[in-house]
Amino acid sequence: MQTLDVIAHIHTDFPSKFGIPRQSGLVDALKGEIVFTEKYRDASALRGIEGYSHLWLIWQFSKSVTERFSPTVKPPRLGGNRRVGVFATRSPFRPNPLGLSCVKLEKVEWHTPSGPVLRVAGADLLDGTPIYDIKPYLPYVDSHPDAAGGFTDRIDYARLSVDFPAALLDRIPGEKREALIEVLAQDPRPGYRHEADARHYGVEFAGFDVRFVVDGEVLRVVEVEALTKK
Amino acid sequence: MQTLDVIAHIHTDFPSKFGIPRQSGLVDALKGEIVFTEKYRDASALRGIEGYSHLWLIWQFSKSVTERFSPTVKPPRLGGNRRVGVFATRSPFRPNPLGLSCVKLEKVEWHTPSGPVLRVAGADLLDGTPIYDIKPYLPYVDSHPDAAGGFTDRIDYARLSVDFPAALLDRIPGEKREALIEVLAQDPRPGYRHEADARHYGVEFAGFDVRFVVDGEVLRVVEVEALTKK
Repeated sequence: MQTLDVIAHIHTDFPSKFGIPRQSGLVDALKGEIVFTEKYRDASALRGIEGYSHLWLIWQFSKSVTERFSPTVKPPRLGGNRRVGVFATRSPFRPNPLGLSCVKLEKVEWHTPSGPVLRVAGADLLDGTPIYDIKPYLPYVDSHPDAAGGFTDRIDYARLSVDFPAALLDRIPGEKREALIEVLAQDPRPGYRHEADARHYGVEFAGFDVRFVVDGEVLRVVEVEALTKK
Repeated sequence: MQTLDVIAHIHTDFPSKFGIPRQSGLVDALKGEIVFTEKYRDASALRGIEGYSHLWLIWQFSKSVTERFSPTVKPPRLGGNRRVGVFATRSPFRPNPLGLSCVKLEKVEWHTPSGPVLRVAGADLLDGTPIYDIKPYLPYVDSHPDAAGGFTDRIDYARLSVDFPAALLDRIPGEKREALIEVLAQDPRPGYRHEADARHYGVEFAGFDVRFVVDGEVLRVVEVEALTKK
């Protein structure tokens, strides 16, 4: 049994799981801040990190703890009704709750009241996610553009067009709009929806509950409400 | 504190650390076998995995446990005398002893006396290394060929030419020769050697202790001895 120490937490605009992109790196406009825990708050541990454009995060699936081992999972992108082996997916429901994400390193803030902070883009992590390790992305060993992607190769990642009425969009801070629209365009609905979809959905993002409906290939935002702080 | 369960072990030709390539994927001829622990010995957990050409392994740096956190390390490839932040390296001496390697999936053996076995190539892992997670490599999110690789971009990975006398090479089983020669060509010496290098080195590989000297760009094998089983 190995025990792990939390070295940092990431702060993102996602207070809940619904709406988080399926994988890291899909929505570049999503920003995150990595703040180290007190024990690891040491600028010298980051010396040289500015030379890398991308980083690996190994993190804890903190909201997906399973009580017992289930060898198969139902990926939402396969419609949620086909079972696939857990080691053939990046599902959170796995023997050890370890997530792996590649993010872009945008900036190192060396001096903040919370010590050195890494500003990253493309993070598919819940706000407050505990991080166990940060490693540089090494293109000469990590990049395999011709790798075969299993069932993910055959999925049609259709984007939705987003109808966001100006009166509602105005409530969102300017610097958050691009990311929010991109999150919506990626179709945050669970994969097992039906063709005729009359449901109302909601995504919590950057302090707002953004409610929408989907008609065919068009996602229409119908309400934006400020979330009350917990 | 998170505790991790060992889901599998990998079997490779490296009984000791010296000689293991710096990163995974550099020597394709290196073969490994992943055998699951009893609790996770379930073929259905691998359903669909044959569709992927590459896998991520998250594993334990079992021989590199550090007693206390050191924020900087001296990468061998920087000559062993320059300190770099631990999060700017893939060094084993890190807060949590988690390794990350991309390997090629060559074959799934569904039925063996040890349950299903994954045959992989390119593994830079010590024989018997405990594995915590296996995830599919997803090229659409994991592959970034243009990423900047920090200090690793500026290192000259000069290969050595290998002079392996036929009488010595004959002692190595045929199917292990290509991998061994490639391991030697990658220059397994620690990075902090001096120009004039009179030392004898030894690499333990596939049951043999392979001793060599290096003169300039030529590595010459001087002895091959069978290792006695521990």
